[in-house]
Amino acid sequence: MQAPAHSAWKPSGLVTLCTDFGLCDPYAGVVHGVIHAAQPGLTVVDLTHGVPPQDVATGAFFVAHSFRYFPAGTVHVAVVDPGVGSSRRCLVVREAGHVLIGPDNGVLGAALTSASEVRALDVERFALPGRSRTFHGRDVFAPAAARIAGGLAPEACGELVSDPVRLAAARPELDADGALVGRVLFADRFGNVVTSVAADDLGAAKDWEAQVGAVRMPLHATYAEGRPGELFALVNSYGCLELAVAGGDARERLALAPGDRVVFRRR
Amino acid sequence: MQAPAHSAWKPSGLVTLCTDFGLCDPYAGVVHGVIHAAQPGLTVVDLTHGVPPQDVATGAFFVAHSFRYFPAGTVHVAVVDPGVGSSRRCLVVREAGHVLIGPDNGVLGAALTSASEVRALDVERFALPGRSRTFHGRDVFAPAAARIAGGLAPEACGELVSDPVRLAAARPELDADGALVGRVLFADRFGNVVTSVAADDLGAAKDWEAQVGAVRMPLHATYAEGRPGELFALVNSYGCLELAVAGGDARERLALAPGDRVVFRRR
Amino acid sequence: MQAPAHSAWKPSGLVTLCTDFGLCDPYAGVVHGVIHAAQPGLTVVDLTHGVPPQDVATGAFFVAHSFRYFPAGTVHVAVVDPGVGSSRRCLVVREAGHVLIGPDNGVLGAALTSASEVRALDVERFALPGRSRTFHGRDVFAPAAARIAGGLAPEACGELVSDPVRLAAARPELDADGALVGRVLFADRFGNVVTSVAADDLGAAKDWEAQVGAVRMPLHATYAEGRPGELFALVNSYGCLELAVAGGDARERLALAPGDRVVFRRR
Repeated sequence: MQAPAHSAWKPSGLVTLCTDFGLCDPYAGVVHGVIHAAQPGLTVVDLTHGVPPQDVATGAFFVAHSFRYFPAGTVHVAVVDPGVGSSRRCLVVREAGHVLIGPDNGVLGAALTSASEVRALDVERFALPGRSRTFHGRDVFAPAAARIAGGLAPEACGELVSDPVRLAAARPELDADGALVGRVLFADRFGNVVTSVAADDLGAAKDWEAQVGAVRMPLHATYAEGRPGELFALVNSYGCLELAVAGGDARERLALAPGDRVVFRRR
Repeated sequence: MQAPAHSAWKPSGLVTLCTDFGLCDPYAGVVHGVIHAAQPGLTVVDLTHGVPPQDVATGAFFVAHSFRYFPAGTVHVAVVDPGVGSSRRCLVVREAGHVLIGPDNGVLGAALTSASEVRALDVERFALPGRSRTFHGRDVFAPAAARIAGGLAPEACGELVSDPVRLAAARPELDADGALVGRVLFADRFGNVVTSVAADDLGAAKDWEAQVGAVRMPLHATYAEGRPGELFALVNSYGCLELAVAGGDARERLALAPGDRVVFRRR
Repeated sequence: MQAPAHSAWKPSGLVTLCTDFGLCDPYAGVVHGVIHAAQPGLTVVDLTHGVPPQDVATGAFFVAHSFRYFPAGTVHVAVVDPGVGSSRRCLVVREAGHVLIGPDNGVLGAALTSASEVRALDVERFALPGRSRTFHGRDVFAPAAARIAGGLAPEACGELVSDPVRLAAARPELDADGALVGRVLFADRFGNVVTSVAADDLGAAKDWEAQVGAVRMPLHATYAEGRPGELFALVNSYGCLELAVAGGDARERLALAPGDRVVFRRR
């Protein structure tokens, strides 16, 4: 197998963490510690530790929609890892000048392109002595990320693989009436409901409305256009269609859960 | 209009973030990324991302009571921004050797003094290409903060303005009996209820008690003076009068919400 | 009293924070500010601010099980401090090449060994001017930690003391049938229930099962071995026996609270 051509690895000195560890426990803090112990002088940024427990798809969405905002040369660690300690592989990916590390369960899948260089991490080489079978964020991914952020070439971290788990993202479908049928992905801190429909899926037309059950919602350009209590759709900062309510929680108002249908049609 | 005299801007290399983004989503993490991408070598500190959603007044309190603990030359970004994407201005403020940046909706208002130098940020100059209309923390405030923390003079960031939104802080009133009537501002993580009454409002006397409905509470000097389960008032670390209960949650015990009356009277 | 021999203090430039401040308020952020103001150039890591309010024992567990993952020369600040403002002492501890600082209420106790050098912090020397009686994390521990992380020798911070609060950790007991009886310590973000039984307490045998009330649970080596919905025990990343359920929340399923009995017996 031939690796796509990537230029020489020039680390930025930054490492990001995206996990489902939460912040009640010292799990995330200890990962910082291992990284600093392995490679002094790095800057470690918490992308988020708030991925819902074991929710690989949401973690994959967060990583794929975030990593490009960091400087090229950043190492991104994604750990949503219900299979930790099993035989699942650990991946090291070069993509768009960044390196992404995480278990091979799809959490890196949404960031992969045809130009990605994907390798299976040589776990034995990087793991802390006496590594656990329950916390590879600390015992495997953190020391490997530190080494790569310190300058180790990703090509030296393991063999190329051709079959990483990609977790096909749900694409919206066209129904018989020509409407776009998307799905609820997750709700954010504000109760805004992020859907699988991208702004690009709507094309240039602006006269769309959203529908959930019997509720129809106009498409606004900003949150500020919503009248108090009004439900509406808008293109959010991920570039996705989102359902919101001015000053309120749309997920609660619409009683939506991941996977629920949201229809977008021309008015 | 004449600008107050401020000495030359000497950045500390620190940027703080105070927002209502929460930590479940990658919003705060991505702001770190944009800052690091715009200006390598800065240190970014999360003051808090736990401002209640769209609660501009609480965000303003947090910023005003916190920024002076950082070294002079720090850039403080405050984003509680329900008007994002509308015509609301973005402000750059010099105050007491610091720079504060945020929307012109009052979130910086509690930090303003007569010596503050307030400018309207030249948004077009700093915004990321293709900026969204829903996330100016990422697309406008982060790149501007990075530039200023990197050494750009605040005076070069936009024109002086004289009418920033100040959100008058609720001051306690004197009732007919000579008691001080304050209001609940918010409760903290421990359920301690912060009021609008400052320690200075009480003067030198120590023989005060607090009252909520029919409940009377003594004034203690420390949390440790409270007997288990006892409700009491004390001067908290913000310099405000606060209601607390030893080993418990005063907000729950007293069923208080923001805006509720709290009376302080001499015993 | 003779101090155990510790080599000269070489700071790593890292400070960690472990508190019950939560992240809704700016308390933790302000501690970062005070540290940076006192000593520019340090790296401050949030170990966690999610210790349950006033839960000294859980804070002690987190610190003791985490600090060794950081590089030697790190200063660890632990603040779970219901006695703040009272006469309780403040401690500075040298242990295994690290320095730990916190109130003398047991929050450092689980990290103490017979080789620890324990001193009472000279509070007057380090406190911010006009210190509060309610927030010594900000007003005492932060400036002291910054000075030590900046190179001040711990020996210069106060007099040796011989009687720090140790909070004896609950050790498992043997019941009449030869079973090990442990206690629930706390549950983590995933609802996994951490017990007071260490992996070492079980010895080399692998044929153990756990029991809570009438529920018996096998011992697995990894989370991935659990069938969906199955309750099981495993050795977690702290080296403790833990109760978990695949894809679920064991604390809820078993309705467990801190102090509840968990029995481990040979099958």
